[in-house]
Amino acid sequence: MSLNMAKFPKQLLESPSGFPELTPKEAIAQMWMLDVIRKHFELAGYSPIETPLVERTEVVSAKSEGEIKNQVYGLRLLNPAEDSPSDTKDLALRFDHTVPLARFIAAHYRELSYPFRRYVIGSVFRGERPKEGRYRQFIQADIDAIGDGTLDVLHDAEMVAVINGVFSELALGNFSVRIGNRKVLQGLLESLGAPPEHFSKALGVLDRLEKIGRGEVAQELASLGISKPSAESLLDLLTSSRSTDEVLAALKEEHLNNMFEEGVSELEEVVRGVRALSVPENRFVIDLSIARGLEYYTGTVFETRLSGHEDLGSIASGGRYDDLGSTFAGRNLPGVGISIGVTRLLLRLIKAGLVETDESTIAKVLVTTAEGLEHADDYLKYAAALRAAGIPCEVYLADRPLDKQLAFANKRGFTIAVIAKAPNLKNDTVIIRNLVSGDQQEVSTSDLVSSIKSSA
Amino acid sequence: MSLNMAKFPKQLLESPSGFPELTPKEAIAQMWMLDVIRKHFELAGYSPIETPLVERTEVVSAKSEGEIKNQVYGLRLLNPAEDSPSDTKDLALRFDHTVPLARFIAAHYRELSYPFRRYVIGSVFRGERPKEGRYRQFIQADIDAIGDGTLDVLHDAEMVAVINGVFSELALGNFSVRIGNRKVLQGLLESLGAPPEHFSKALGVLDRLEKIGRGEVAQELASLGISKPSAESLLDLLTSSRSTDEVLAALKEEHLNNMFEEGVSELEEVVRGVRALSVPENRFVIDLSIARGLEYYTGTVFETRLSGHEDLGSIASGGRYDDLGSTFAGRNLPGVGISIGVTRLLLRLIKAGLVETDESTIAKVLVTTAEGLEHADDYLKYAAALRAAGIPCEVYLADRPLDKQLAFANKRGFTIAVIAKAPNLKNDTVIIRNLVSGDQQEVSTSDLVSSIKSSA
Repeated sequence: MSLNMAKFPKQLLESPSGFPELTPKEAIAQMWMLDVIRKHFELAGYSPIETPLVERTEVVSAKSEGEIKNQVYGLRLLNPAEDSPSDTKDLALRFDHTVPLARFIAAHYRELSYPFRRYVIGSVFRGERPKEGRYRQFIQADIDAIGDGTLDVLHDAEMVAVINGVFSELALGNFSVRIGNRKVLQGLLESLGAPPEHFSKALGVLDRLEKIGRGEVAQELASLGISKPSAESLLDLLTSSRSTDEVLAALKEEHLNNMFEEGVSELEEVVRGVRALSVPENRFVIDLSIARGLEYYTGTVFETRLSGHEDLGSIASGGRYDDLGSTFAGRNLPGVGISIGVTRLLLRLIKAGLVETDESTIAKVLVTTAEGLEHADDYLKYAAALRAAGIPCEVYLADRPLDKQLAFANKRGFTIAVIAKAPNLKNDTVIIRNLVSGDQQEVSTSDLVSSIKSSA
Repeated sequence: MSLNMAKFPKQLLESPSGFPELTPKEAIAQMWMLDVIRKHFELAGYSPIETPLVERTEVVSAKSEGEIKNQVYGLRLLNPAEDSPSDTKDLALRFDHTVPLARFIAAHYRELSYPFRRYVIGSVFRGERPKEGRYRQFIQADIDAIGDGTLDVLHDAEMVAVINGVFSELALGNFSVRIGNRKVLQGLLESLGAPPEHFSKALGVLDRLEKIGRGEVAQELASLGISKPSAESLLDLLTSSRSTDEVLAALKEEHLNNMFEEGVSELEEVVRGVRALSVPENRFVIDLSIARGLEYYTGTVFETRLSGHEDLGSIASGGRYDDLGSTFAGRNLPGVGISIGVTRLLLRLIKAGLVETDESTIAKVLVTTAEGLEHADDYLKYAAALRAAGIPCEVYLADRPLDKQLAFANKRGFTIAVIAKAPNLKNDTVIIRNLVSGDQQEVSTSDLVSSIKSSA
């Protein structure tokens, strides 16, 4: 095919802003990140489902609230024909993985067994104005556990262990999972005399503590009916930097109300589970100031901060929701989930030089064609032998001088070159050159695979 | 969150028709297929890039021809706000991976080194009327090699080796890659007196040989200026079932015209490469009747048939195109690529019972909680130890009788249950039960990991 790109002004050649595209270096880094995430999702007993990128607008609209309401992409046919499908106006791109999960569970309720654990790693779309660090298409990696009627709070503890597994292996730096509980916050607000109709507003105010500071939060809480001294004591509690056990002990001494006590007992159970799951103490902390938005969450809430990149916000967040499927099938479907915003994290880390992007090839071995394609049969045979042994390799299939081929190898990030010049071809030997150290050895072609295996 | 699905009529709970969704069983089968495909793409030296699912309409429209022209999905905002991005009308979903590749190469031309090998595995969209075996969203897995100015025909041979690698490992049954060449066909038509302006129509007619039969093809060729005897001798040649070497020998005896001879020599070189790459003789065949559509391809063309599923059509197809980027940068960018239609193949194989979909869990080990969540600390510790050793497992985190837990394990497809009853908890032992054979053994908790490793 011929796509005449010369007709296109340069700016049209770039992907639309907010729709990131990745060169091999970046795509390899993303693949590594996604593989690590998937591995830990699977280790923890989560299995994949696949929901389409496109949902019915009725389904998407049922939960697109606030900002998101204005960001949902619908579909249209650019040039509809007479026999085009007529339902295009009813189709929209998904904006998260939770709404499709709710529809999926409702559609497949009877086929599934509970607790149901699923993961999904895929793109979601939001039609917002693109700006630094905001994307219109981005990959979210989610796990959720869904119960039929009930779901033990220990599932919440497992979320912390998964986050710990993922970010320990990614080794991006120190991180900690902050664990909060909406019931504790709500109980506190109740006991401080905040009128119930202002709870969700107050939670929203608290959620912005880090952004707007303590003074402004106290002021806004006052306007919601919480006296200055009450607000101060609340903020003291929320911002104290005591150890997990000290916080739990302090909370257990208070007996404010049922809501509060329920939340405290959930927090305690989550900490118990997190410890049983061998998550190191420095990887999690109770942070009562976390509220996570206004509506979804009903119990445990999580955020994860990466040291040195606090301005990225939370890199893995989630929490407990009471009911995914509401009155469907006459049953409650409580759940707990987390979501890792892969695209934003990846592109930020690349920019900060925190992930390796020096290599633009997955294969580490380049089979050169030192004597030209006339001898391609030999070179291709080496490649076939390496591949059959599970060693990815590329064959340089063009007639160019060896030094140009080695320059290509260096530019791409190959670390081993297989070289066979005329005498090698004659003697059935090859030279294996380590392109990093410059070391090389001549081996019999029958030892090619084993030599490369041992040099890797 | 609460998505009140009770409000939705049952038919709205299903994913929109033509947008397939996969339950864990099916998603696990798809993951297996995608992992095998990716592995062989990487073994052959292909590296990933990621282009967005959304492109500018100008880019997509530049190559959407024929049927596809009416099938391109544009975007619209369902509820635009005042500050919504203004370019939504310029955005469309990709309908293949080749157009985005062309744009990508043009945009990143100078950063890349050539020959450039990339793979991409992802969804594409076509707004056609859904029917049996046709999807509006489907996964295509593509590799392409792009040269800067030239690209040796041995790259075409590598495509056959990759297809062989993928489908040998998938083990879906016998398959063979049919290798054709557009130049040979075109040279033949020329020599038979077909007027040049009818070449592409004649290729289209030949492409339908299997569908409409020999008689009708001969008739249609006649209407394009090819005499009956010429058409018959052409069809004899195209449908002869001779061996690869016999076909090549026969073709080399003819010296019809330059176009023909160039094609024959390319075919010969591809066969040479395929053999050097150790592809077994029964996995490929020269099939001169393959034309692959009307426009894109200019040399080698491939199709792949799965025995017993010929009606599926080609499961992996592609070919050589002369110029991906046309006059961009004043250079030709010739390429060769193949595409595997994953979704269609997967769903067909599932329907035919050809892929294993008995298990709806990736983890094979279920840690039961025989003595209830009161003892969750112990059970979670077993799970943490297994996961740390790389063994995926789920903990049954609900207070239910052991027999119900084992029924859950069987329904889901777990093959090993870890059971610790009161005496086990006391003695620091666990029972490892093989759920398939029913065998079980009691081991010390310190031997849990090694025992499960050796029993797997």
